[in-house]
Amino acid sequence: MSSRARSKPAVRPGGRSARVQQAVHAAVRELEAEQGRGALTVPAIAARAGVTPSTIYRRWGDLHELLSDVAVERLRPESPPEDHGDLRADLSAWATQFLDEMGSATGRAYLRDALLGDPDGSNAGQCSAYAAGQIEVILDRARRRGEAVPGVETVMDRVVAPMTYRILFRPDGLSPQYADDLARSVLPPAP
Amino acid sequence: MSSRARSKPAVRPGGRSARVQQAVHAAVRELEAEQGRGALTVPAIAARAGVTPSTIYRRWGDLHELLSDVAVERLRPESPPEDHGDLRADLSAWATQFLDEMGSATGRAYLRDALLGDPDGSNAGQCSAYAAGQIEVILDRARRRGEAVPGVETVMDRVVAPMTYRILFRPDGLSPQYADDLARSVLPPAP
Repeated sequence: MSSRARSKPAVRPGGRSARVQQAVHAAVRELEAEQGRGALTVPAIAARAGVTPSTIYRRWGDLHELLSDVAVERLRPESPPEDHGDLRADLSAWATQFLDEMGSATGRAYLRDALLGDPDGSNAGQCSAYAAGQIEVILDRARRRGEAVPGVETVMDRVVAPMTYRILFRPDGLSPQYADDLARSVLPPAP
Repeated sequence: MSSRARSKPAVRPGGRSARVQQAVHAAVRELEAEQGRGALTVPAIAARAGVTPSTIYRRWGDLHELLSDVAVERLRPESPPEDHGDLRADLSAWATQFLDEMGSATGRAYLRDALLGDPDGSNAGQCSAYAAGQIEVILDRARRRGEAVPGVETVMDRVVAPMTYRILFRPDGLSPQYADDLARSVLPPAP
């Protein structure tokens, strides 16, 4: 069990622990924006956040675990997927945007950060849960419109997994057309 | 460009550079087997390999880049996939074995190591190329038998990607049946 996992139950909104988390996350974002990833050391982050380095080590274990938490926070969707009126358009728009964002240098760095400082797998699981949650919204809307819909796990296997795999392992030649092709592959056959 | 990428062109079989690489890789494997991952520090690895720590830093940049190279070396297939006489059996056996090996705690650690210390993406690309190479062998055999075969990129998207994605992001409940279902999903319809 990681030190981060041990400390998580103690985080309460508005408490000291939550304030430290906000200050440290903000320090990471600011330092990275101002000076690049090379500036992200525990002493520099601690100085910017107004905490001691040992506060960071005690809570996150090491820099990788902290960057993983920050990455997951940034990968959290800010709003539900756009509603384009039908399943095909919604899935295609969502997949195209996912590939565009996650396939960027920044998105790929967040995905890797999320995976890498994550000894217990909870942050990787959270990333996947964010994607599954957005897809559930799209599928629920389509169901309410009376459209036939695939299962969410099918969409994970056929759309999210291939995009994520290629972003991480073989990023050459990814295109919006690829995302659209994957999205169309899970649509039920026209009646 | 990483220091590792810079130094790679200098590696010649039998040369000093190749001997250093072999000794350092062997030191990582031995220390990990004997004492676990916690024992893997650059000074300990250097002492075991009979080199100086600065040799390791010069060549690999840091511990993560070294572990990434070692992981890719371990993920290299040792033999072509078994020949079971038809495409369905070959793909299913390969996928089941891939999920079993990569989904183990050790396999998942190698996958993460390969991704983590890989600033230029070449090690992740090599992992993916290993899988694609094994699938090419299976598809070529089936073609020579006169069977209809899917494209290798289709098998990457439909079989390798979902298994790898779930191993990394949502490993709960993976089973041989899942691997077999994915393998069957890429078979051409029976004539």
